[in-house]
Amino acid sequence: MIKVKESEKIARTTVQIPGAKGVSIRRLIGKEDDAPTFAMRLFEVVPGGYTPLHRHAHEHEVFILDGQGSVSGSWGKMSLSAGSAVFVPGQKEHQFINVGDEPLRFLCLVPVAADG
Amino acid sequence: MIKVKESEKIARTTVQIPGAKGVSIRRLIGKEDDAPTFAMRLFEVVPGGYTPLHRHAHEHEVFILDGQGSVSGSWGKMSLSAGSAVFVPGQKEHQFINVGDEPLRFLCLVPVAADG
Repeated sequence: MIKVKESEKIARTTVQIPGAKGVSIRRLIGKEDDAPTFAMRLFEVVPGGYTPLHRHAHEHEVFILDGQGSVSGSWGKMSLSAGSAVFVPGQKEHQFINVGDEPLRFLCLVPVAADG
Repeated sequence: MIKVKESEKIARTTVQIPGAKGVSIRRLIGKEDDAPTFAMRLFEVVPGGYTPLHRHAHEHEVFILDGQGSVSGSWGKMSLSAGSAVFVPGQKEHQFINVGDEPLRFLCLVPVAADG
C-alpha cells in the first residue's frame, strides 16, 4: 500500500548516542513500512548542537532542508545550507554541526539494515 | 571522499518518459558518486504537470519540498504538501501531479540499480 505521512505529525525522539548534542530524529520511512532497501529519517539539530563525530560501514545520503550547518572530520570541513546534498561514503569520519541561529533540519537516508 | 553538492547548481534535464508532462530531474547522488545502495534525485513538476502513471519492481521514497501535489492510481488519490513523506512499494501504480500554482519539488530516492 502507498503510504503518505506528514513529517510534522511523526513522533520526534532525542538521539541518545554519546557525542550527540541537541539532536532529534523522526523516522519517516523504514522497516515498519517494509521498505526493502533504505530508510528515510528527518533530523533536527538545535543551534550549537551536533551529531557524533564518528564513522561506520554504511553510507549516508543527506539533504539539507533548513538552517546553516557544516559537515566536518579530520579531513576538514564543508559548509551546508538549504538545498545542499551530502554523500558520506562508508568509513568516512563525519559530524554535522548547526552553525546558525535557527534549527538545522535535514533528511538522512541509510541502508535499511543500518537504521535503528 | 565526502561530497557536498548545491542542488541548484546541478544540471536539470527534462524527463522524456512517455506519459510525463512538465517534469525535470536533477541527479543529486548516485552511481557517479559510487553510491552503493540508493540514489537521490530532485524532481520539479510545473503547475498542471505530472509524472507517468506507471508501476515497476522498485520502490520509491519521496519527500515533498515545495508545492501542492497528489499521488494517485487506480487505488485512489492522496494529497501532498511540503513535509509529506511518501512510500511507494514495488509494483504499486502511482502518478505524481502538481495540483497547485507553484512548482512542485520533491526528492525521489530509488535503489541505485533503478536510477538512470
